[in-house]
Amino acid sequence: MTAFDPAALLTVAREEARTGEAEGGVPIGAALFTVTGELLGRGHNRRVQDDDPSMHAETSAFRAAGRRPHYRDTVMVTTLSPCWYCSGLVRQFGISHVVIGEARTFSGGHDWLAEHGVGITLLEDPECIAMMTRFIERRPELWFEDIGTEPPPEH
Amino acid sequence: MTAFDPAALLTVAREEARTGEAEGGVPIGAALFTVTGELLGRGHNRRVQDDDPSMHAETSAFRAAGRRPHYRDTVMVTTLSPCWYCSGLVRQFGISHVVIGEARTFSGGHDWLAEHGVGITLLEDPECIAMMTRFIERRPELWFEDIGTEPPPEH
Repeated sequence: MTAFDPAALLTVAREEARTGEAEGGVPIGAALFTVTGELLGRGHNRRVQDDDPSMHAETSAFRAAGRRPHYRDTVMVTTLSPCWYCSGLVRQFGISHVVIGEARTFSGGHDWLAEHGVGITLLEDPECIAMMTRFIERRPELWFEDIGTEPPPEH
Repeated sequence: MTAFDPAALLTVAREEARTGEAEGGVPIGAALFTVTGELLGRGHNRRVQDDDPSMHAETSAFRAAGRRPHYRDTVMVTTLSPCWYCSGLVRQFGISHVVIGEARTFSGGHDWLAEHGVGITLLEDPECIAMMTRFIERRPELWFEDIGTEPPPEH
């Protein structure tokens, strides 16, 4: 079943995140693959680029993959632990596995997904951690907007 | 706090669902309002119309409302109980209340949202029930695709 290489999949998501960073956006990238490693769709957060709050990295990759009758043979890779919105996407569509770059700077719903039978691979990749740490330091207001949370008082 | 009229809000979502039905799409509509009843965005499922699996009614309305720093003063109205994807959206962005047309033909994550402090108003509106019942009977393959589920054997 697990014919994919998590680190290889993460490379694609990390490239997407870097593109988002270079565009001045939220540097989170994702991609949807089959469990045998075929790329179905890739994307990055487009809040800034398209003024679109609905396009998180995972939803962007899911959209790029187009319509499918089911997702039980798919793996989502994302540079950051999926928020509730993106975790809900994974659960509803029955995506079988999620490869996560890091959950150090933000932890979303991946434990909940694991409880509901989704395979989780957490890599704690230093480059993903560094990219998000840099972003949160530089653009806290944009980060908190992206997760619908008000900045803590120190910001 | 609850200055909005749930039935009046549902009228807008139902209009969106009817538009989706007339377009040959999945007949689910939604809208985002402030708790004082100001319309922020409205939309309907666009799977068929845009070949876009990421645009459920609720995500479509959320997108139409544009970027906001927070959603604690907002109410989502939808003709159908929100699936896990759309329930995750509501939880992540802190939408305070969800008005639901019906949960008879499909029940998603609204109990989970209530457990996490989201106000839920379930109307069991006969027109919403009739519209979805008609759709599921006529287009079962499209309905099951929309929720990422394989049709039961009888279909």
